[in-house]
Amino acid sequence: MIYKIKHYLSPNFKYILRFCPFCRHLISDHFIFWQSEYIAPRDARLAWMSGFTGSAGTAVITQNKAVLWTDSRYWIQAERQMDCNWELQRDASIRSITNWLILEIPEGDQVGFDPFLFSVDIFDVYSTNLAPAGRILKSIPDNLVDKIWTGRPPLPPDNPIRLPDNVIERTWPMKVDQIRAQISDNPYKPTAVLLSALDETAWLFNLRGNDIPFNPFFYSYTLLSMDEIWLFVHIERITEELKVYLNSSCYHSYCVQLLEYSSVRTYLQSYLQRPNVRVWVGTEYTNQALYELITPEDKRLTSTYSPVLTTKAVKDATEQRILKEAHVRDAVAVMQLLMWLEKKVPEGTENELTAAHFVDQCRSEQKNSRGPSFETISASGPNAALAHYSPSNETARKLSVDEMYLVDSGGQYLDGTTDITRTVHWGKPTDFQKEAYTRVLMGNIEISRTIFPAGTRGVNMEMLGRRALWEVGLNYGHGTGHGVGNYFGVHEWPVGFQSNNIPFQEGMFTSIEPGYYKENDFGIRIEDIAVTVPAITKYGNNYLTFETVSLVPYDRKLINTSLLSPEQLHWLNKYYETIRSMVGPELERQALKEEYDWMMKHTAPFLTAGASAVISSVTLLVTVLPSVLLYNLL
Amino acid sequence: MIYKIKHYLSPNFKYILRFCPFCRHLISDHFIFWQSEYIAPRDARLAWMSGFTGSAGTAVITQNKAVLWTDSRYWIQAERQMDCNWELQRDASIRSITNWLILEIPEGDQVGFDPFLFSVDIFDVYSTNLAPAGRILKSIPDNLVDKIWTGRPPLPPDNPIRLPDNVIERTWPMKVDQIRAQISDNPYKPTAVLLSALDETAWLFNLRGNDIPFNPFFYSYTLLSMDEIWLFVHIERITEELKVYLNSSCYHSYCVQLLEYSSVRTYLQSYLQRPNVRVWVGTEYTNQALYELITPEDKRLTSTYSPVLTTKAVKDATEQRILKEAHVRDAVAVMQLLMWLEKKVPEGTENELTAAHFVDQCRSEQKNSRGPSFETISASGPNAALAHYSPSNETARKLSVDEMYLVDSGGQYLDGTTDITRTVHWGKPTDFQKEAYTRVLMGNIEISRTIFPAGTRGVNMEMLGRRALWEVGLNYGHGTGHGVGNYFGVHEWPVGFQSNNIPFQEGMFTSIEPGYYKENDFGIRIEDIAVTVPAITKYGNNYLTFETVSLVPYDRKLINTSLLSPEQLHWLNKYYETIRSMVGPELERQALKEEYDWMMKHTAPFLTAGASAVISSVTLLVTVLPSVLLYNLL
Repeated sequence: MIYKIKHYLSPNFKYILRFCPFCRHLISDHFIFWQSEYIAPRDARLAWMSGFTGSAGTAVITQNKAVLWTDSRYWIQAERQMDCNWELQRDASIRSITNWLILEIPEGDQVGFDPFLFSVDIFDVYSTNLAPAGRILKSIPDNLVDKIWTGRPPLPPDNPIRLPDNVIERTWPMKVDQIRAQISDNPYKPTAVLLSALDETAWLFNLRGNDIPFNPFFYSYTLLSMDEIWLFVHIERITEELKVYLNSSCYHSYCVQLLEYSSVRTYLQSYLQRPNVRVWVGTEYTNQALYELITPEDKRLTSTYSPVLTTKAVKDATEQRILKEAHVRDAVAVMQLLMWLEKKVPEGTENELTAAHFVDQCRSEQKNSRGPSFETISASGPNAALAHYSPSNETARKLSVDEMYLVDSGGQYLDGTTDITRTVHWGKPTDFQKEAYTRVLMGNIEISRTIFPAGTRGVNMEMLGRRALWEVGLNYGHGTGHGVGNYFGVHEWPVGFQSNNIPFQEGMFTSIEPGYYKENDFGIRIEDIAVTVPAITKYGNNYLTFETVSLVPYDRKLINTSLLSPEQLHWLNKYYETIRSMVGPELERQALKEEYDWMMKHTAPFLTAGASAVISSVTLLVTVLPSVLLYNLL
Repeated sequence: MIYKIKHYLSPNFKYILRFCPFCRHLISDHFIFWQSEYIAPRDARLAWMSGFTGSAGTAVITQNKAVLWTDSRYWIQAERQMDCNWELQRDASIRSITNWLILEIPEGDQVGFDPFLFSVDIFDVYSTNLAPAGRILKSIPDNLVDKIWTGRPPLPPDNPIRLPDNVIERTWPMKVDQIRAQISDNPYKPTAVLLSALDETAWLFNLRGNDIPFNPFFYSYTLLSMDEIWLFVHIERITEELKVYLNSSCYHSYCVQLLEYSSVRTYLQSYLQRPNVRVWVGTEYTNQALYELITPEDKRLTSTYSPVLTTKAVKDATEQRILKEAHVRDAVAVMQLLMWLEKKVPEGTENELTAAHFVDQCRSEQKNSRGPSFETISASGPNAALAHYSPSNETARKLSVDEMYLVDSGGQYLDGTTDITRTVHWGKPTDFQKEAYTRVLMGNIEISRTIFPAGTRGVNMEMLGRRALWEVGLNYGHGTGHGVGNYFGVHEWPVGFQSNNIPFQEGMFTSIEPGYYKENDFGIRIEDIAVTVPAITKYGNNYLTFETVSLVPYDRKLINTSLLSPEQLHWLNKYYETIRSMVGPELERQALKEEYDWMMKHTAPFLTAGASAVISSVTLLVTVLPSVLLYNLL
């Protein structure tokens, strides 16, 4: 397909670097979430160009080459889907791409790119790599693929909707006040905040959409100043009711002026022409297309994250309550799956796909369900060693009592987003599988139970999730956790355990998800969502710990309790008590008697080391000693 | 004293921002080391200007104000030493300084600074804070203070010396080869490396000096290209023998061309005028005075650290061996101190200063001694709660059996640099003191015994040093460790547990030094040096752990063993075995019989939890049960 683009290259830019719509940091013309790499069909440019449909990749097209970079998950798929016009590069790092460009094109030449598909920070990495070598990045805001894409899918059909009042504590004008207070408190005197990431606008106005699979967002930007609110959307999708809700008929400081989505660059430029304005942007989530307009430098104030993202990261009391409630209902669905599999797998009738469908179905029957929060990862045996595998009709493996099984799934609910992974074995696990599973669980517990000062960064604690594995020379190659929230994308940054995540404060929700993967054999991941809560300590104040809000028991067959410390066993038993007290009533309310019994059986307390030691001593005394003594005496 | 500078301000720069010679990151015209904030008297400009002699501070002088920023350690001292022309600011962060400048001076005005006193990275922080507000930094390479400083002390008298062959594995031409290999392997094709930090040049040529107290360095820069070596020094200090050693009479690629120290900017500019050159600099340790000359951008290649600093961080086999040997001798000196204090303190004759002198004296008697590696911190009772307190004649507190005592000291030896802290109590510690001490020790042990993949960053593990404290709401306000090496500054970055330190590889030496400080009461710190060594794991390869090379027992009176995990107790007993096997023979060799007995007594094994449990069960069986059974039987 390469010719489609080639004839379009002007003499000014002979090369196109196109950070793909499926990429790790950019989605459509917005960055979105790592791992939740979903886009609307109209943004699937890379698939249309190359045939490759994987969820991560970057393409570069020159006058005589077309090259795709993607990571190991997709090497086989890419080779199969792309024709011989395309070349595959297997090191998907930016450094590998820029090194290729430096080798391939002469110094001084320009490399075109669509600035809507680069965040400021990602652009900076490309630029920092290329500039010293004299290769120049050239912004091309009119995407070249779109110009030749006949039959590009239209906008998704659903209009944005407002959240019901019962899931909201702060109305949108209250949120506007919160952000404006931060604008006026900032010593650098910004006059407005620019919101580029889709979840920023959705959060600010308590709106949701359906433009992107699994992600309740709608195409939008916002420019919020002290006296104006500009919302850039496809205006024809805004209903009369929403217009009233947004006060769109006036121009006062609490009136939302609706502006056409495609006019954002024009309006931003007009704002910047006003005297004494300074626009505050978060560099991690603002696209280069808007950022490059904000010149000269003194019109710009940057922080890594916008004040909306840092404010949104801390959930208010209502958000915390309803997100926990969503997890109780979600636990019911996951327990239904696990119980069903326990019965069905020995019959040999199920495969990865039927299991995925079953859990999706169970979730859909729960109150407030809005579908899965990502494509369910249902992986048996060696498939689970591929960290992001999702089954298809061609690949679905039959489930068997001879293999381990990993299911990573989540739901969107009007009140919250869930994400949970359980790994189980229905037959006889090997000692190594038990050891690896137990050490993954120890990692999960060690993070969950740790006490730390408010303001500690996740990245400085995440080794607790790995330490029990490291001890025996095992590890895992992915992150240890990401934020999650109230009906947003399943990876809700900037909360989590990555190096670019913000410090933990009370009221943040994060996944905790250590794992272990043995290539061609099996995969283990244990993932729970937890909320940061105050910890009561003997001497100090302002300490936090985690409270786990995912409420599904682990596979006890896979736990070697002799490896656990007394503190870990204690934590586990307390957690199981919580599952009983939180999910038990919900199962009863839903009249799920069999599931209730299943839950009670799987949350039976483990004997603690102390308790078992006492028992064995007593046994020893009663059974052995008397006879010895008697023998000596008699 | 403020008038001295005021009349000198030209209309072009009405403000002077002078990052002090004692500052955290810059020393003299070189950045040096955190905490080891020592400078030659000729660089003590801030003291001469303001009267303030503390080791950290930044001054700004405008047409009508003179302001000093320093941290809480020095507030009282600064108030006492400075006259009413000076104003003290108590938030010593760069942000506080730049906020003050933004408030104080109008937009568009220039702020002068001496670029020799700013590293590139520190300059960037100032610039990033000031530029958006329209305050412009103006480089003034000719220091304004020096121009008016009559009676400025001359160069220190000692010439640089070469290290003896027995402490060297790599000759300087071998090191030149190592660095040149990295220059030619770099994909960005640098043509030379510029070395700005004093220890870079000292390391490269296996030279040491005596220009700065406690730090064996000499004023120098190096420009190393593939075919030339330019060494900038005060040439009159280079002896004929050194000139021969450095091949200074020729111009081939292994000949060191000696150039006058003050000509570095001129020569660097001349090098940059050659075609197709690109100079590689480490931004964390290169001063802005050289960096600002490297223009345009494509003449410059930056990394956080120069290849010399990253290469130097990994010790070769000889360096490892001799650094461990230095620690054995150093342990003898510290044991002599501790034993002496045990005897003398109850007599009431000693104070902080006599103790400091005693340990300095003990070290000076050890082989290869070159004096202390920093000013000994000898602190009793509340003084130890001041993290960087050093005693003086005025402040020296009498040592008493009623107070805890902290001694943080180290030695320079021709073969290595040491740094160790022990905290002791000669009377009856409180339960809280014991708990705090034990939890600090737990932190030290948890880091020391942890197993981690090669390439793990210290900052991602350092919470292990805090976790036992966090559990009860305690913490400490300083870093957890810094690199150390073979006769260099006692803080040998970029190894350590700070966020800007490089990942751990085999053969790196770092301190591990958690602490706890109760204001106005006592301070605890337990500091050991450890080297990263391969760890044998059950399943994996390329894992590391720490081997502690500081070999002095902890105060067992302060250890509550019931708080320790079995693994921690096991580690402690193994460590004590190592002290016996390593230091025992040295004490015997030095015929220190009393010290040998002291060491044996203080390294007696602790009963492990398992062992004591067994003993008490056996006791129970033997004493109680038979009589009960007999009673029942008879």
